Amino acid sequence: MARTMIDSTPKKDGFKMPAEFDTHEKCWMLWPERPDNWRLGAMPAQKVFAEVASAISKFEPVTVGCSSDQFDNARAMLPEEVRVVEMAHDDAWIRDCGPAFIRNDQGEIRGVHFGFNAWGGLYDGLYFPWDKDQKVSQKIMEIESCIRYDARHFILEGGSFSVDGEGTVITTEECLLSPGRNPKMSKEEIEENLKEYLGAEKVIWLPRGIDPEETNGHVDDVCCFARPGEAVIAWTDDEMHPYYDIYKEARAVLENTADAKGRKLKIHTVPCLRPQKLTKEEAEGVTRGNAIQRMEGDEYAPSYMNYLTVNGGIICPQFGLDSDIEAVKALQKIYPDREVVGVYTHEIILGGGNIHCITQQQPKGK
Amino acid sequence: MARTMIDSTPKKDGFKMPAEFDTHEKCWMLWPERPDNWRLGAMPAQKVFAEVASAISKFEPVTVGCSSDQFDNARAMLPEEVRVVEMAHDDAWIRDCGPAFIRNDQGEIRGVHFGFNAWGGLYDGLYFPWDKDQKVSQKIMEIESCIRYDARHFILEGGSFSVDGEGTVITTEECLLSPGRNPKMSKEEIEENLKEYLGAEKVIWLPRGIDPEETNGHVDDVCCFARPGEAVIAWTDDEMHPYYDIYKEARAVLENTADAKGRKLKIHTVPCLRPQKLTKEEAEGVTRGNAIQRMEGDEYAPSYMNYLTVNGGIICPQFGLDSDIEAVKALQKIYPDREVVGVYTHEIILGGGNIHCITQQQPKGK
Repeated sequence: MARTMIDSTPKKDGFKMPAEFDTHEKCWMLWPERPDNWRLGAMPAQKVFAEVASAISKFEPVTVGCSSDQFDNARAMLPEEVRVVEMAHDDAWIRDCGPAFIRNDQGEIRGVHFGFNAWGGLYDGLYFPWDKDQKVSQKIMEIESCIRYDARHFILEGGSFSVDGEGTVITTEECLLSPGRNPKMSKEEIEENLKEYLGAEKVIWLPRGIDPEETNGHVDDVCCFARPGEAVIAWTDDEMHPYYDIYKEARAVLENTADAKGRKLKIHTVPCLRPQKLTKEEAEGVTRGNAIQRMEGDEYAPSYMNYLTVNGGIICPQFGLDSDIEAVKALQKIYPDREVVGVYTHEIILGGGNIHCITQQQPKGK
Repeated sequence: MARTMIDSTPKKDGFKMPAEFDTHEKCWMLWPERPDNWRLGAMPAQKVFAEVASAISKFEPVTVGCSSDQFDNARAMLPEEVRVVEMAHDDAWIRDCGPAFIRNDQGEIRGVHFGFNAWGGLYDGLYFPWDKDQKVSQKIMEIESCIRYDARHFILEGGSFSVDGEGTVITTEECLLSPGRNPKMSKEEIEENLKEYLGAEKVIWLPRGIDPEETNGHVDDVCCFARPGEAVIAWTDDEMHPYYDIYKEARAVLENTADAKGRKLKIHTVPCLRPQKLTKEEAEGVTRGNAIQRMEGDEYAPSYMNYLTVNGGIICPQFGLDSDIEAVKALQKIYPDREVVGVYTHEIILGGGNIHCITQQQPKGK
């Protein structure tokens, strides 16, 4: 049962994407390996991916997809309770190349296969080619025997939106209106596609994210829904902070926009971090290949917002900074019923993302 | 949940392999592609594999494993109801490189991962290397989240034995005692491994099979269990038939050996075929590579015995011979409650096997 829907949409068929804070069936990850993005042959990153998988698997089952060549290595490095399946990919950002799982009122689970072009294709994408990434959603649907909606006409990464499961989507104009995504679609058409394929009624547009050079400002470094009617945003009161304006304008939109149910959003905050610079050693560990080259001194944008919500838990990035504990405390206050677990993910941010970017939840069905 | 058992065996843990005629959860196949074994870039074989998958899927779900490179092609050629998963392999003989699924009285399903060395390893194997084949069992167990018994110390192909699900195994000395399999094990040790890992009490040893050069005489071209206490064997009354002696001595053993339950076996027969010769055109369509080279005039051994038993059906090879109808009729008489479906499989026999060799059933659990 691997049927593909072409002539319909999730919304037409009564499906919508459950929120990340809804109950999960399992969590999907991919296994990093490309040496032109991950330093030292990806070994340090693999260790951290294994730690993230291990942390998640305390709360829900984890499946990790890896290339044929990496199967033995991934199997050896990952804990026994993690399922390892063969799945070729161009890089390990399953949040962005993976499917959006959707559910109807009867609890049937299906998947949406969006287009993926490595965050901007030939305009400003981060590597070439990306043909294997483009098949990840389909391969997951095949393994799970889910019906798949083919939405490959619409370039959309999972990290570029957050849903509340009750009809509201938050996204950023910087990313979704970027010339590297869907340049032939108007903002209205893009909004229509979001609504049809995520099963939503309302799109809240934030202006910008914090990494214009990488994901063109994915919202998952900025804010997300904590529960219906409540959003979390990174925040600082320091007007001199390099991201102050970005967060201020995002917060203003959130505070002045009703959600799909007409609710005014309650806003929670976590600490906001400053950009950091790649060291010489970090830059030199990466080989030259088909991915964009990051040089010594290049800035990257760490964010505690790139956490993952799992069944009964929050898996939160830690950077070895004083604010790490503060972030965990803030999240624990926002999620009193979940256990907040920090994982030190410096190696993942060096590759261009964090915990949320390397995971994709599959909601519970039935 | 991908645990591996090393210190125990299925028999010790109360598991045994259900017979092929028991109810299946699904059927596994692999997708052929190597041009040094399948002529014309494997395209003709792929068409027939798709027809076999299609025929089986009328009776039970089918999953086909294919390489990353072949994913789009396999997905396009296979019917929509077939599940396609990525699974690298050296060739498509999943009966031999795949797992033996086992079940306990509570209905839990586990798998046995036997050693595989391409039918004889460096002694008289059919291709080199075979490292991807060696991982197929493990990858299937991972996808199915089954506990796996690691029996890789014991080289055993699924086509080299038939079980009745009630403690009896039929195999051939020619294959299991071949120097290319387990040369450091005595016949008693081999028998002990069969019993421990298939959950059996009695091994019936037939002397020979009909293809010494290829599989070293797999039993699945000669005979199998149709139900407890009943075996099927290919047969001819023609004493001048090239396989007459082989079948006569096999039948004599079957008729003079009690099964694990002490029953005398009832013997059914299907028509026996003569060896055929590879044509010039057939031989020339295969590229030179790392597989044994088959030349014009080389003999191959077609057999109706290489059929597959599925839920409510029998999928039987057809060769375009007058005896095809006779074979279907014979099988229909042996299996009055199953629908016998013939598939023309000339292209598969050219590659070295038939329907039974390219399939592996997963029994129903619970």
